[in-house]
Amino acid sequence: MAELPIAPFERILRNANAERVSDDAAKALAEVAEDIAEDLARDIVKVAKHAGRKTIKIEDVEFVAED
Amino acid sequence: MAELPIAPFERILRNANAERVSDDAAKALAEVAEDIAEDLARDIVKVAKHAGRKTIKIEDVEFVAED
Repeated sequence: MAELPIAPFERILRNANAERVSDDAAKALAEVAEDIAEDLARDIVKVAKHAGRKTIKIEDVEFVAED
Repeated sequence: MAELPIAPFERILRNANAERVSDDAAKALAEVAEDIAEDLARDIVKVAKHAGRKTIKIEDVEFVAED
């Protein structure tokens, strides 16, 4: 929880042509992204364990991301 | 591009019970999360403009995230 910094999400919104970004909007986007990353991480760990590995590898991320 | 730091994604994977995380797996998850955030940001900016605003507000994020 609250692992991700907020400033990059303000930049991501500006890169998407936002003229102004309220602080709580950038924070909300960070939270949404973190929730999504946590859901992906759960599936990624599951997939690695299913493959009999203790180390998460890039192919586990790709497998889940391309799902 | 490459706005998000990688270390938080290693922590997110560990919080999801990963025993070990390869560096490129954490980087790949950061990239996936950034792609998703960029897609969301495009929709968020569109929604705010549709509402006649130049400032991105939290309700724009919620509108898109709950979509």
